[in-house]
Amino acid sequence: MDTIGHHYVVEAAGCDPEIIGNADKIREIFLEAAKISNMEVKASYFFKFSPTGVSGVVIVAESHISVHTWPEKGYAALDVYTCGEKADPEKAVDYILEKFKAQYAHVSELKRGIEEDDSTFTHTILTWEEKLDRRNGKKA
Amino acid sequence: MDTIGHHYVVEAAGCDPEIIGNADKIREIFLEAAKISNMEVKASYFFKFSPTGVSGVVIVAESHISVHTWPEKGYAALDVYTCGEKADPEKAVDYILEKFKAQYAHVSELKRGIEEDDSTFTHTILTWEEKLDRRNGKKA
Repeated sequence: MDTIGHHYVVEAAGCDPEIIGNADKIREIFLEAAKISNMEVKASYFFKFSPTGVSGVVIVAESHISVHTWPEKGYAALDVYTCGEKADPEKAVDYILEKFKAQYAHVSELKRGIEEDDSTFTHTILTWEEKLDRRNGKKA
Repeated sequence: MDTIGHHYVVEAAGCDPEIIGNADKIREIFLEAAKISNMEVKASYFFKFSPTGVSGVVIVAESHISVHTWPEKGYAALDVYTCGEKADPEKAVDYILEKFKAQYAHVSELKRGIEEDDSTFTHTILTWEEKLDRRNGKKA
């Protein structure tokens, strides 16, 4: 597989605490996100912290999706990283933010595994912010 | 736990193909990296691709370590992300690069979960490159 990968590093704010505090719900959202964005799931693991917060990882053939949540803050630290052309990681990010009912996202997209002439590898970074209006189930 | 986290996104080049192509060896390196950098391991998963390449994730109480490798290119895409003050993620990165026998690393350190006044969250990014001289087991 090509080394080029797209890694979305997302700070999601204003999320629904009941959703991002529920490991089963996050698992369901992640598995659906993998499915609709054309990723092949290899394994998944979700862990609920005491008293609140969830850590979750789905390993897909094309790389991984992970999240660590702070329900009391409405905050989720989300990563979606895929290699190859088959998967659509941005679609997974959008789906997860929608299901988390996030109001705001600070996103950096890292293009990873860029091979240089001397056999070293670099990444490039593009950062943006999104205000999300979920009242109509659509982005603002 | 505090939302602030340190996430190292690393493109490691010139790695030993036999090491980064061996799922058992990577597991051993990751578990030791977690131990020496004061992380509490919750779960780990390693997957060997056909014909080459390994994906691996260790979920720690403080967040996660993950890697996806291309042994034929000597390339490994490494992430080490921890929250809180207890763990020392940079120590884990240095240990893993040393054990992979990496010759070069392009690194971005993302400081995540920075809370703003309006309850949104952002991250900052610092990028650097390292040439690593492994002949004496030390960095250049």
